[in-house]
Amino acid sequence: MDVENRTNRGLHTFNEEDEGGGDIENDAKELPLLGKRRNTTSQIAIVGANVCPIESLDYEIAENELFKQDWRSRNKVQIFQYIVLKWAFALIIGLLTGLVGVFSNIAVENISGFQMLLIYDLMRKHQYYTAFAVYAGCNIVLAAAAAALCAFIAPEAAGSGIPEVKAYLNGIDAHSILAPSTLFVKIFGSILGVSAGFVVGKEGPMVHTGGSRKYHLTWTWLRYFKNDRDRRDLITCGAAAGVAAAFRAPVGGVLFALEEVASWWRSALLWRTFFTTAVVAMVLRAFMEFCATGKCGLFGQGGLIMYDVSSEKVQYSGPEVLAVIILGIIGGIFGALYNYLVDKVLRTYSIINGYVTCIPCPTDIAVSCPNTDETGNYKSFQCPPGYYNDIASLFLSTNDDAIRNLFSASIEKEFRISTLALFFSAVYCLGIITYGIAIPSGLFIPVILAGAGYGRLLGRLFRPISKLDTGLFALLGAASFLGGTMRMTVSMCVILLELTNDLLLLPLVMLVLLISKTVADNFNKGVYDQIVKLKGLPYMEAHAEPYMRTLVARDVISGPLVTFLGIEKVGNILHALRTTGHNGFPVIDEPPFSDAPELCGLVLRSHLLVLLKGKIFSKERVPAGQEILRRFAVFDFAKAGSGKGVKLEDLDIEEEEMEMYVDLHPITNASPYTVVETMSLAKAAILFRQLGLRHMCVVPKSLGVRHTLSQLPSSLFDVCG
Amino acid sequence: MDVENRTNRGLHTFNEEDEGGGDIENDAKELPLLGKRRNTTSQIAIVGANVCPIESLDYEIAENELFKQDWRSRNKVQIFQYIVLKWAFALIIGLLTGLVGVFSNIAVENISGFQMLLIYDLMRKHQYYTAFAVYAGCNIVLAAAAAALCAFIAPEAAGSGIPEVKAYLNGIDAHSILAPSTLFVKIFGSILGVSAGFVVGKEGPMVHTGGSRKYHLTWTWLRYFKNDRDRRDLITCGAAAGVAAAFRAPVGGVLFALEEVASWWRSALLWRTFFTTAVVAMVLRAFMEFCATGKCGLFGQGGLIMYDVSSEKVQYSGPEVLAVIILGIIGGIFGALYNYLVDKVLRTYSIINGYVTCIPCPTDIAVSCPNTDETGNYKSFQCPPGYYNDIASLFLSTNDDAIRNLFSASIEKEFRISTLALFFSAVYCLGIITYGIAIPSGLFIPVILAGAGYGRLLGRLFRPISKLDTGLFALLGAASFLGGTMRMTVSMCVILLELTNDLLLLPLVMLVLLISKTVADNFNKGVYDQIVKLKGLPYMEAHAEPYMRTLVARDVISGPLVTFLGIEKVGNILHALRTTGHNGFPVIDEPPFSDAPELCGLVLRSHLLVLLKGKIFSKERVPAGQEILRRFAVFDFAKAGSGKGVKLEDLDIEEEEMEMYVDLHPITNASPYTVVETMSLAKAAILFRQLGLRHMCVVPKSLGVRHTLSQLPSSLFDVCG
Repeated sequence: MDVENRTNRGLHTFNEEDEGGGDIENDAKELPLLGKRRNTTSQIAIVGANVCPIESLDYEIAENELFKQDWRSRNKVQIFQYIVLKWAFALIIGLLTGLVGVFSNIAVENISGFQMLLIYDLMRKHQYYTAFAVYAGCNIVLAAAAAALCAFIAPEAAGSGIPEVKAYLNGIDAHSILAPSTLFVKIFGSILGVSAGFVVGKEGPMVHTGGSRKYHLTWTWLRYFKNDRDRRDLITCGAAAGVAAAFRAPVGGVLFALEEVASWWRSALLWRTFFTTAVVAMVLRAFMEFCATGKCGLFGQGGLIMYDVSSEKVQYSGPEVLAVIILGIIGGIFGALYNYLVDKVLRTYSIINGYVTCIPCPTDIAVSCPNTDETGNYKSFQCPPGYYNDIASLFLSTNDDAIRNLFSASIEKEFRISTLALFFSAVYCLGIITYGIAIPSGLFIPVILAGAGYGRLLGRLFRPISKLDTGLFALLGAASFLGGTMRMTVSMCVILLELTNDLLLLPLVMLVLLISKTVADNFNKGVYDQIVKLKGLPYMEAHAEPYMRTLVARDVISGPLVTFLGIEKVGNILHALRTTGHNGFPVIDEPPFSDAPELCGLVLRSHLLVLLKGKIFSKERVPAGQEILRRFAVFDFAKAGSGKGVKLEDLDIEEEEMEMYVDLHPITNASPYTVVETMSLAKAAILFRQLGLRHMCVVPKSLGVRHTLSQLPSSLFDVCG
Repeated sequence: MDVENRTNRGLHTFNEEDEGGGDIENDAKELPLLGKRRNTTSQIAIVGANVCPIESLDYEIAENELFKQDWRSRNKVQIFQYIVLKWAFALIIGLLTGLVGVFSNIAVENISGFQMLLIYDLMRKHQYYTAFAVYAGCNIVLAAAAAALCAFIAPEAAGSGIPEVKAYLNGIDAHSILAPSTLFVKIFGSILGVSAGFVVGKEGPMVHTGGSRKYHLTWTWLRYFKNDRDRRDLITCGAAAGVAAAFRAPVGGVLFALEEVASWWRSALLWRTFFTTAVVAMVLRAFMEFCATGKCGLFGQGGLIMYDVSSEKVQYSGPEVLAVIILGIIGGIFGALYNYLVDKVLRTYSIINGYVTCIPCPTDIAVSCPNTDETGNYKSFQCPPGYYNDIASLFLSTNDDAIRNLFSASIEKEFRISTLALFFSAVYCLGIITYGIAIPSGLFIPVILAGAGYGRLLGRLFRPISKLDTGLFALLGAASFLGGTMRMTVSMCVILLELTNDLLLLPLVMLVLLISKTVADNFNKGVYDQIVKLKGLPYMEAHAEPYMRTLVARDVISGPLVTFLGIEKVGNILHALRTTGHNGFPVIDEPPFSDAPELCGLVLRSHLLVLLKGKIFSKERVPAGQEILRRFAVFDFAKAGSGKGVKLEDLDIEEEEMEMYVDLHPITNASPYTVVETMSLAKAAILFRQLGLRHMCVVPKSLGVRHTLSQLPSSLFDVCG
């Protein structure tokens, strides 16, 4: 047998015993996709079981002839245009996210403010039942509106949105998770939800707001951005902008995107993300300056620091540090438990009833007690003058106000221990339950709220041994819960710093985050990772699993491999596209177009569809590259918006055209990433993840006869075919 | 001709015209390194010109049989031991860096404090000439001591140290840049230098302090850390700890390591770095608490916030923002100019003379004026009671005090415009000049000092249009200089935040950083990049150069390729080691040990030397893998400390042993990273950089005859052979 044929056969299937018999060779030549031999190694089962219907993204540059021609021909004006557009988009994302943040804040403050005013008014007239009916009615209407928006317009908008963005940046494009309708529902649904008094945050929807900008990118003059790489950059910027707007924490936003969301990072992106969040910060700052004059209703009194706790010099030593360590450990356990419960979405409702008593106002405070309006710390509720209701102070306020109350220093006994315990358990449970219902929501605020309650409670209990202020304990409690659920460190530190403006506590916050994350890591994974898994979104970890070290790439290749010749019969291509779900096919050049069979590169399904639609076919097996380069531009092959590309059904190929040939060279990516078949699976996986690949070719280590070229199985690396 | 031979030849050289002639084949078989054909493509010259004598590091895991055997046999105790050690090292680095930071601070404060006290004493007695002589004498002695330390013990210690650490983490191990003697000189030299009143920072040496921990890793029980990967992690932690200790900015330290220093990053490392800097923060905090009681002499009054400028609510609108934008633009230009001048190391000394006048003390201040001790803002110098000397207030203090003075708000006219202009130009020039002299020094403090002077000057000039405090202008000026020289954004933001504790200025700081970096980027590169280049340290950028897109890997491979057979003659190996400087050699299996010639993997020079020293040779070409696996453990091949590994001269091979055979399979890394010869050079470079490789094999795209396997040239990827 001559080498060429054996090589050709080897290209299509890999099989240890496949020594003799050239019978398969002709089949393969005629219809490469029908190679009959299958890989019989058992390891396929290990990593090849999890097949999913979600498309994956392709962050690799397809360096085909069209791309190269375009790259060479790009002049300085076009390059300048590209750079300007890139920064313009970052600017627009920053501006819009900032505006949405302001709008959302104003809306929430005014809706719930109006509601509270109404209730206080009724209670002042001692119409308690009417007040309750109005309170319940308002909230039911608001919640129902939020749920209806979600249910009828965009069911995908329920929940935080951060796990979806995280999955997108890891390389998964689940249908419509970033569609404009989802964005609309996210914004209005979260406003209604927060106003209804739900224990939800609004940072998740904000992240989304930034991210959704990608769907505007279908105009032709934006052709340079029609690829997954540039969209990924924009969405990363959007995620950072979202967190920056939600917490007024621009640097924290950048770090959140870096630490939690982005699978892939480079310093140029850091710089652009920083620009975006700086724009957000300036927009927020400008509106706050404007609103401070009272023109925005009840908004704008918080300032840039949401929960300013900057206080006199903090003193701490042995006992305080010990108390903080205990706080961190318990916080970590509670955080892990939170994740566990969110994961199970326990639908047990805890009923809060009775327990309404009035507390005499402290005499040594500057503000009026009980408060005459709805913003103060001392709610009157049903109490006589000179008394205030501490439960109402916590429950009958927006989440932001409750957090501010809990962080507030100097008045230690403002909240009773039993009140704090009740509030903590209620918020802890409500947060878990609410996250499961179908409204757009965030996780940060509920966690901060529960953590602050827990911290203040513990601060009260530690009073005998620690002199640290209970307000600071509340802050540390929030940090411990955040560490226990989110498992972020640096970004959490900066976000807390930016939220509270208390730099002197930094060493303690770092200590608490370290401890609570370490403790919680022993129980389960971070909450976003859990939700990603729960939603069935595939996620590729940055590290290799231990079992991968004992396997090599050859062990997990799936067969039969479907390949094309450099100049292939139209019928063969159509058959392959119809009968398989693969998105990439290796292209092999054979004599007389090369001296020997050789790997020409990889061709993508979407590119094949566009090429077939162009119908540049020839009767003979001859090169037609020049014709194709003349007729097509690289942007004809740019990635279209979802659902807008050429589909298989759109093709209208005549019977006689099926027997004609098409030249695949111009659209073949001549630089696919490859590994040798003996490469350990662990290293191959790291390569795959580090470079954000969708396809990877496995090439033979043999340099003589018996060659193999295979793709890794779709389930492991090419995540969804 | 049969395939096998042609393939074999192709393995050793790649040459387009090399069609006929099997004459080279026997040569190659006998002595593979003597393949006569050379790659004649002209592109080698393009990327192959820059050859350097510095060793590069190997961050790849050598997955050979020994590694795999060890990996399989590691039990839970060993894995636990490894993890505990990893964290223990992070803890030790944090503790030591914190202690060195405290020690260095105490030493500087006390040395210069004592000196100042002496001078004031003399001046109070009107012995001005004696005072000057003491001042000059002290400084000359201190400076000479610093220079002598440098010159006689460790010349490598001169300068900042950050560029060296940056180069190390990029993959370059320049001789002794991180040796213990360098560390010693760094610490004491920088103390002497700062005390001598030089305009130098101490953060560079601090970074070094953290980094040098790697040299303690030569004990046997630390066998798990004897590889470049784990050392890289430790040095990254050390760099973060250094910045954290120098500026008391733990989060800023993490981000500095992330943004500026590390070429390679993963979230697990973020977490460990965070831990290290948290330890540093706690050590510093503990000592400050201790020193606040006055037990450390003149140290400890600064607190955790070095230059606390937190002030009343900052108001700014149109004119202020405009002023800040102008400040940013000018700052960027000055920053770029600074880089340019540092690069040229202009040795022009500007003489400061005369210009001593006394200013009446302001009447509305709480502190005494002139100060009775040496720490205050209002230096008396030669002035009568009730007057103070503003030049002395800036020059006659440690750098930290000068910065604090410049940032100090509320007293606008404390420094005259002419004083500020003089101070700015002097510090700007002195900083540039001092950096060039041979003492250990940092760049941060000089840049902050010059920037603060510039900012305060501009603040005075903008007085008519902007109501922003001049102290805040000084802070923004420092930010603009830092942005213009260092070109960092996020980490600079956090470091400034942690230095000054002023969160409300954050939007303005972000704006200034954005503008100054953008402006300066038009002129030149960041100062650390420039110094790396100036020192001749090779540095591989994260992005590919444009010309790389038009080349493929095949274009830059160098020949002749030196390869070994799986079981190779000892003489051949020795000859190859002697005649080449390569650190990695491809291993090819040939019949009868495989069905056909195939790529077995890559073997490292250091591993070959250890194997040859073991002398497990056989008279016949037979496998001896089991014997080798029995006789060696994986740690015998672990990377030794510099200068401690087996050297070629250490080998004592007898004449008859030269004709014997040695089995290379157990030490061959069977999973080398490979690219196909048609891979575009740009993508190959990105792969190389992203994965931190030292060697990369180029394999043939041809799947039949005419196979090639080559290494990329040492100058481009395998940076120094």
